[in-house]
Amino acid sequence: MSEYKLPSRSEDFAEWYNQLVLRAELADYAPVRGCMIVRPYGWALWENIQQALDRRFKATGHVNAAFPLLIPQSFLEREQSHVEGFSPELAVVTVGGGKKLEEPLVNRQNSYTIIGHAYPKWIKSYRDLPMLINQWNSVLRWELRTKLFLRTLEFFWQEGHTAHATYEEAEAETRQMLDIYTDFAVAEAAIPVIPGRKSESERFAGADQTYSIEAMMGDGKALQAGTSHNLGRNFAKAFEIRYLDNTGELQYCWTTSWGLSTRFIGAIIMVHGDDKGLVLPPRLAPIQVVIVPIFKTDDEKPSVMERAQKVSAELIAANVRVKLDDRDGLTPGFKFNDWEMRGVPLRIEIGPKDVVNGTVALSRRDNPGKEGKSFAPQEGLAKLISETLDGVQESLYKRALAFREKNTHAPQNYEQFKEVVEGGFALAYWCGRRECEGQIKEETKATTRCVPLGQESQDGSCIRCGQAAKEKVIFARAY
Amino acid sequence: MSEYKLPSRSEDFAEWYNQLVLRAELADYAPVRGCMIVRPYGWALWENIQQALDRRFKATGHVNAAFPLLIPQSFLEREQSHVEGFSPELAVVTVGGGKKLEEPLVNRQNSYTIIGHAYPKWIKSYRDLPMLINQWNSVLRWELRTKLFLRTLEFFWQEGHTAHATYEEAEAETRQMLDIYTDFAVAEAAIPVIPGRKSESERFAGADQTYSIEAMMGDGKALQAGTSHNLGRNFAKAFEIRYLDNTGELQYCWTTSWGLSTRFIGAIIMVHGDDKGLVLPPRLAPIQVVIVPIFKTDDEKPSVMERAQKVSAELIAANVRVKLDDRDGLTPGFKFNDWEMRGVPLRIEIGPKDVVNGTVALSRRDNPGKEGKSFAPQEGLAKLISETLDGVQESLYKRALAFREKNTHAPQNYEQFKEVVEGGFALAYWCGRRECEGQIKEETKATTRCVPLGQESQDGSCIRCGQAAKEKVIFARAY
Repeated sequence: MSEYKLPSRSEDFAEWYNQLVLRAELADYAPVRGCMIVRPYGWALWENIQQALDRRFKATGHVNAAFPLLIPQSFLEREQSHVEGFSPELAVVTVGGGKKLEEPLVNRQNSYTIIGHAYPKWIKSYRDLPMLINQWNSVLRWELRTKLFLRTLEFFWQEGHTAHATYEEAEAETRQMLDIYTDFAVAEAAIPVIPGRKSESERFAGADQTYSIEAMMGDGKALQAGTSHNLGRNFAKAFEIRYLDNTGELQYCWTTSWGLSTRFIGAIIMVHGDDKGLVLPPRLAPIQVVIVPIFKTDDEKPSVMERAQKVSAELIAANVRVKLDDRDGLTPGFKFNDWEMRGVPLRIEIGPKDVVNGTVALSRRDNPGKEGKSFAPQEGLAKLISETLDGVQESLYKRALAFREKNTHAPQNYEQFKEVVEGGFALAYWCGRRECEGQIKEETKATTRCVPLGQESQDGSCIRCGQAAKEKVIFARAY
Repeated sequence: MSEYKLPSRSEDFAEWYNQLVLRAELADYAPVRGCMIVRPYGWALWENIQQALDRRFKATGHVNAAFPLLIPQSFLEREQSHVEGFSPELAVVTVGGGKKLEEPLVNRQNSYTIIGHAYPKWIKSYRDLPMLINQWNSVLRWELRTKLFLRTLEFFWQEGHTAHATYEEAEAETRQMLDIYTDFAVAEAAIPVIPGRKSESERFAGADQTYSIEAMMGDGKALQAGTSHNLGRNFAKAFEIRYLDNTGELQYCWTTSWGLSTRFIGAIIMVHGDDKGLVLPPRLAPIQVVIVPIFKTDDEKPSVMERAQKVSAELIAANVRVKLDDRDGLTPGFKFNDWEMRGVPLRIEIGPKDVVNGTVALSRRDNPGKEGKSFAPQEGLAKLISETLDGVQESLYKRALAFREKNTHAPQNYEQFKEVVEGGFALAYWCGRRECEGQIKEETKATTRCVPLGQESQDGSCIRCGQAAKEKVIFARAY
């Protein structure tokens, strides 16, 4: 697999991405159009993402549950805005146990309606609030144009659904989860993201407010990497989710929802990857360090292997996720390419001279070739490896941030705007009118990604129409 | 919820079970017939089961992946024995994205066929073997009679699917996974199980050999708690899963599969539960220790709460899963019942006298009432709690084992056999003929559960027909 070269990232980003996903064995196409098989290496990455998020969810009082896959079709009609947003995307079960069903069932596209069914049974009084439930599952949406990880009929995600007694609590939850996504993206995935508020037209159907984190991919396009919605009382009213307050009065709950999906794997690929393949941030990498033993003769093998095993054992003891590549019959060069394709952050080479000198050669994936290569004593290696992994993590983040900054512009007029959104973000004033937003999209393919949080209110004029504007918005072409 | 009394376990086991599942908030009925919602407390239990198994799977070289939910209906026709076993149970998707599909898709009842599609693409040579993949997912089977956790249309499980170069390796894998299930059941769930071989008629469709672990429930019936199948080359031949051996010849693989599901939660309930509700083994319990602060006046509250928080913090630091029940407006008695219903292994009570004396009261869930109650100094409490939890774990196992032994009989003739299988296991010689097995089932409702492993070959005569028999078999009525 590894002598194979990827298409150049700069020349054909889309094809580079598709082939990387397959060659790195992250995922494969399923027999059903638009579905994917997440292969063990890709799933191990997702498991690390899950753990990093789940730890944060639980530390903030959330619990997991499992709502069912099958939903009566009639449920979807209860929330009109929901139906409009989703019904063309349904997969419908009409036959069960060999018989035509009286009422068709749909495979969930999300768990809103089933949760809308359950919460009124579980929430009676203010004592039952807040209800802070998350679910890890897969959902189905009948997408027409698909791409592995980025848009598939079935995808994997977590969907949090919470209910609160007050607007303030719901808004605080919505923002807390956005903060958690931001912290996760930065600290674990080394991806700089812009947390912000969505425009009305980009908002989730049925939400009072949608927040998202937006990341810049290697081609300058934006990817929405996680969303958090304040649903106000819209959802509670549609499903009669009510509670008795402490004065005995019946009140509607305030609800939120938030989600992050296997799309995020697409973001990791497109932010950090290079022409040699995947580049994984050490904190999420299934394999952080690969050890490649190097020997030319059978005589050299035993001492090299012994030393490689010793180094491997020391790193395992230091909680490093290490793999000793002891495959027979493959050249070191083949192995180097293979692990570079899979994005392993650090490679250790041990040869006969290293056995004698008590050294190893270290190669950093974020800096391939001679520049990223160094030699180190075996003594005290675990500490050095751990520091080097931190260094790789930091350098990936800095590089991605520098790339984003270089490709984020503050155009002075609409002509400049059109140019910059061809391969980057434009931070520009916008009047806030849906019409103007629509025309910008039509003329430039760029959409409003988000209104970055923490801006002070300013006086400006809309980049397109020149009308008064209060806030700057990130515009970009998006995945 | 907690002033409510369950039906007596001894008088109405089935209804006791149903109500316990709902009252302990393990699961709830979903709107679609036969589906369930696993509530947060039940899911936390399942997460602990998953972790205990997943650790064991990974330690033996297995990796996880995610195969898709949707499977082309035509795939099911490739393995005839498979179709016969499963097709009446299908949920079929006939409409996608608003259009009738050209080929119907089924929601997976398992991942055999999709894996049969993937493995030939991934396995080329002996270097690619063994392929050791597991998946945690949910599957759908259109069951007619359902019961929460024990038999639902959708259930949660893991399905392992492995491919090997030789029969010996496949058989070793099959047995290894059976051993892992046995170890898990005994060490984590405190459930004694009998590992054994299934009779031909109880075997999985398409398997050369099926092994299972069988547990005795509180009503003397058997529950198959995990299965491991040696599929020979049957599955590989149906799906053309082949590899080039080291002489360059194309060979069929030998495959295995093994699974354990949310049924296991049903086993935990039915083995350990009592009239007060659930009783959880400490190693799997989402909450191992609950602290109930006790005070009568507002004056007493601050010092009691302060001490309760201090004890809670010490236990958290010692990695005990502890919950401080600081709910206002509920009596201690209500809280006791509530946590007993949920099966929390240990309760700590702290009152004003305990604050003064530096003591706590301890109550063991496995021994409710005065007998299981003791007093302990707060000094060094974490160590005592940890030992006591080990004690509860051990006593639950011993009690379940004693119950099984008491209700396992070696009937001397068929009349005795009929009696004992009404409420227990019969260990008896069987001739091995399918016909005889069928008649026993018809006459007694007892089926062959398994041929316990490790028997020496003996000479006996079949409990029903008197013909020569070589092995003793466990017969029981089963869930």
